Amino acid sequence: MIFRQLFDRESSTFTYLIGDAPSGEAALIDPVVGNVDRDLRLVDELGLRLVAVFDTHVHADHVTGAGSLRERTGAKTHFSARGGPACADVLLEDESIVFVGGLGVRAVATPGHTDSCMSYVVGDRVFTGDALLVRGCGRTDFQEGDSRTLWQSVQKSLFTLPDATYVCPAHDYGGYTCSTIGEEKRLNPRLGAPMTCDGFVELMGKLQLPPPAKMSESVPANKACGKRT
Amino acid sequence: MIFRQLFDRESSTFTYLIGDAPSGEAALIDPVVGNVDRDLRLVDELGLRLVAVFDTHVHADHVTGAGSLRERTGAKTHFSARGGPACADVLLEDESIVFVGGLGVRAVATPGHTDSCMSYVVGDRVFTGDALLVRGCGRTDFQEGDSRTLWQSVQKSLFTLPDATYVCPAHDYGGYTCSTIGEEKRLNPRLGAPMTCDGFVELMGKLQLPPPAKMSESVPANKACGKRT
Repeated sequence: MIFRQLFDRESSTFTYLIGDAPSGEAALIDPVVGNVDRDLRLVDELGLRLVAVFDTHVHADHVTGAGSLRERTGAKTHFSARGGPACADVLLEDESIVFVGGLGVRAVATPGHTDSCMSYVVGDRVFTGDALLVRGCGRTDFQEGDSRTLWQSVQKSLFTLPDATYVCPAHDYGGYTCSTIGEEKRLNPRLGAPMTCDGFVELMGKLQLPPPAKMSESVPANKACGKRT
Repeated sequence: MIFRQLFDRESSTFTYLIGDAPSGEAALIDPVVGNVDRDLRLVDELGLRLVAVFDTHVHADHVTGAGSLRERTGAKTHFSARGGPACADVLLEDESIVFVGGLGVRAVATPGHTDSCMSYVVGDRVFTGDALLVRGCGRTDFQEGDSRTLWQSVQKSLFTLPDATYVCPAHDYGGYTCSTIGEEKRLNPRLGAPMTCDGFVELMGKLQLPPPAKMSESVPANKACGKRT
């Protein structure tokens, strides 16, 4: 498996390139529209062919590159069937599996930050979007956010993965690039032991965060797969 | 081998944590003084003990955390013997090997960006400092910089490593996090095929870059292992 982590400085978003060397097929997870040229150049330089784009959710802080990548390469766009945009080529259910060459991409529904949140398990990695960040998690105060739902998603669908699984988050704001499930179970101050569901709900209810700077433009654009409506 | 890439947003510096799971010994490569608390917390969270700090060179754009980490943990600080600061615990020659638990860290002299530039090979990774960046390289117009020397370092000491070796640079400004030797041999516009030494010298001579913002304070501080003189 070819694996590359890419970073968008403006929104602190991680984009991931995964590639299957034998077939030359590749996918991008959470591409940002402003970085589509960079990402396609890298796909090409590595001798790969983009066949799929996966979004972990309908983002509120940046516009997805999915629609642009589909136009330019014919890659199929993938979102969750629960709250994902109708413009997606493939709407995924919990436990859907999509193949990128020989790489199985297993969709795991992890709602709570938004209804549309889907994590993707590929080999020994899980791409968690905003459901689980390094020592943190996405907020739950807009876009169908629900703390109790997020708690249950993480405990049931992510913390049951093997401890050695690498956590590849959609963002980081403190200079971390990855973690593991074992680490987050032990060390995540919001979702790890000894936190409880009620404690998490109370903590998230007190955050009082300002709205994301680009929310009013990002959400409508992402509901159109990243193309302006 | 435990491996973590960390990022300093202000200077776009990558710091690397490497750890030997059986012994619990760990090292930091190119720590930044402002991130020492974060880096030590991660070492501790992973159940590791910091025994060594390696700097790839005397930096001009940020202050090393080496001296602070030595004070707080007793870790030994490592620099190149060629141009490295006398305050370092260990001054390394080309092909010196230092063990971090069972992990061999092989020093490979790669001068040219500065005289003190040392790359470190650990397993299938090479930590290249500013000698080789993703599709680029460090500048050669100050601090003993010499384009011809850098060309020779990269061709002789880095491009002779196996193509699959992961390149872990000291910086990135475009959202990349790693590359491979094979990629840079093919695709680096400054140092890869079909560039020549003379072409590289000419290209570097024309860059006309402004001095790094923090050079006047960083270089003296780094010559004192990151402690103010």
